[in-house]
Amino acid sequence: MDAALDKPLVGFLGPIASYSHQATLQAFPEEKWELRPAATITDIFDLVQDRRVLKGVVPFENSSNGCVVVTLDNLADRDGRYRDIAVEGEIFVDVRHCLLGKKLEPEGNAPAAKQGFEHIKQLHSHPQAFGQCRRFISQNLKHAEINDVSSTSRAAEIVRKNGTASSAAISSRLAADIYGLDILAESIQDRDDNMTRFLIIRNSQLGSAGSSDIDYPVNPKTSQDAGTKSLISFTVPHTSPGALANVLHCFKECDLNLTSINSRPSLLAPFQYIFFVEFEGHRYGQDGKVEQVLERIRHVAEASRWLGSWETRR
Amino acid sequence: MDAALDKPLVGFLGPIASYSHQATLQAFPEEKWELRPAATITDIFDLVQDRRVLKGVVPFENSSNGCVVVTLDNLADRDGRYRDIAVEGEIFVDVRHCLLGKKLEPEGNAPAAKQGFEHIKQLHSHPQAFGQCRRFISQNLKHAEINDVSSTSRAAEIVRKNGTASSAAISSRLAADIYGLDILAESIQDRDDNMTRFLIIRNSQLGSAGSSDIDYPVNPKTSQDAGTKSLISFTVPHTSPGALANVLHCFKECDLNLTSINSRPSLLAPFQYIFFVEFEGHRYGQDGKVEQVLERIRHVAEASRWLGSWETRR
Repeated sequence: MDAALDKPLVGFLGPIASYSHQATLQAFPEEKWELRPAATITDIFDLVQDRRVLKGVVPFENSSNGCVVVTLDNLADRDGRYRDIAVEGEIFVDVRHCLLGKKLEPEGNAPAAKQGFEHIKQLHSHPQAFGQCRRFISQNLKHAEINDVSSTSRAAEIVRKNGTASSAAISSRLAADIYGLDILAESIQDRDDNMTRFLIIRNSQLGSAGSSDIDYPVNPKTSQDAGTKSLISFTVPHTSPGALANVLHCFKECDLNLTSINSRPSLLAPFQYIFFVEFEGHRYGQDGKVEQVLERIRHVAEASRWLGSWETRR
Repeated sequence: MDAALDKPLVGFLGPIASYSHQATLQAFPEEKWELRPAATITDIFDLVQDRRVLKGVVPFENSSNGCVVVTLDNLADRDGRYRDIAVEGEIFVDVRHCLLGKKLEPEGNAPAAKQGFEHIKQLHSHPQAFGQCRRFISQNLKHAEINDVSSTSRAAEIVRKNGTASSAAISSRLAADIYGLDILAESIQDRDDNMTRFLIIRNSQLGSAGSSDIDYPVNPKTSQDAGTKSLISFTVPHTSPGALANVLHCFKECDLNLTSINSRPSLLAPFQYIFFVEFEGHRYGQDGKVEQVLERIRHVAEASRWLGSWETRR
């Protein structure tokens, strides 16, 4: 019992059996970590900022459905609440959605396997999961009422509670096991290469290594930094209309490859944005390129923040 | 009657009393246009592509909540369904959300005005409206069950149908009038400068002027194009990691100011993107800069598409 209490904590988006849970288990094995489910993505940021957990795992983007806006909004840190949050790694999870519910008792000679989905009146899931299963829903469940809930796992829990065949969930195979539901259809996502990327966050005031079990490179080995990535956020002065191009030009000058760009409203004034740029390279790489680009950006951006560097996992 | 049939059609996201309706009325007065509500944003793209309406109005971004993903996904046109869609204008609408429902009968001496919102058990609205009223919801309606519906106007309709005080909607003042609901709270959006920008789309095969009533500049007057904007989409070859920076550099070379960047999954392979860039300038401006940048981009992007140029409205 005492040994268990000594395990460091990692926060993830609960409830259990969520894809976030699966991601967290991949990077933080239960022999070494105590996994702590949180109700919302924002709660995970709070737990990490307030040092109530050592690490947090937050969904960042899905390959079919795009970015997770709440995670970007928390990383934007518009009011300084999350000033110590840093990204230190990523986790990729294959997403295989199932339609879960209760099989109808076969009527007469009709084999159960031939049953359609007409009897399903409510369909529960997370909005991201609905977005990832558009084709299946429009072909088979157009008549069903869509009910957005906070996680795919919560959706399975609701269907379990409802107990009738008129209610179904889009959720994982793991959730079917845990909530004792029938798998009515498997791999119903639009694409077979559906993947979600999670970020591992930590409190930068706690140092980088700690009792971390993920083999985070303190000294990245290659001078090319081929296998590392960094994330920064920045705003540009709206009085200087060429500023966005100037910031992006810094990456070209430093020969650093952009891998993604996202923007969210700055909330300072309408239609001004905070930008997020991911690029190849590690801040503590031997070539010093990332340090260089950060320095240059400081001169052209209105505000900028290095959010972290990590080893790519794919 | 015959005169009414002769009016050109414009499609918008219904039902009536939606903010889209309001936007459409701003640019397309009913004396000259017949307004045709559509059930989804995708339906509007279909109507315009199939020439069943002359113009379409689609929500593009909100100043608090960011981009409308479905509109970007349709503009991405991954399967060539919307090859003839072009953007020809924008409309800005001030968003003033209200909490609509049924006032409780005052109990004993308690004045009705002092009533809280504890009796509200279900809150209906569009996800974007929920995103724009986060503060009010977390302060007053944390206990309520959130129910996403297809529009703020549909939310008001549901509350009207329910008829009890336990159900409320986030919707517009116009919807309160139309559906005969009480305004329980006014201007509940997080920000007073909450605005939504809509795009006007048309079928490029139908020519640009037609019976359009919006004063779209066929020959933009200024050589500076200070008051015009263009939108393009592009993908970059994933085998050439510097390609994104190269495309963005084209704007700097042509001295064109970027005003926004967005990305969506390309759905060709995981974590490859289709990018959307808005920038100042008109394709048919006298200085030829936009034509120049389009030509340059064609050489560095994998694929690119000019989606339209228009006069800015703000």
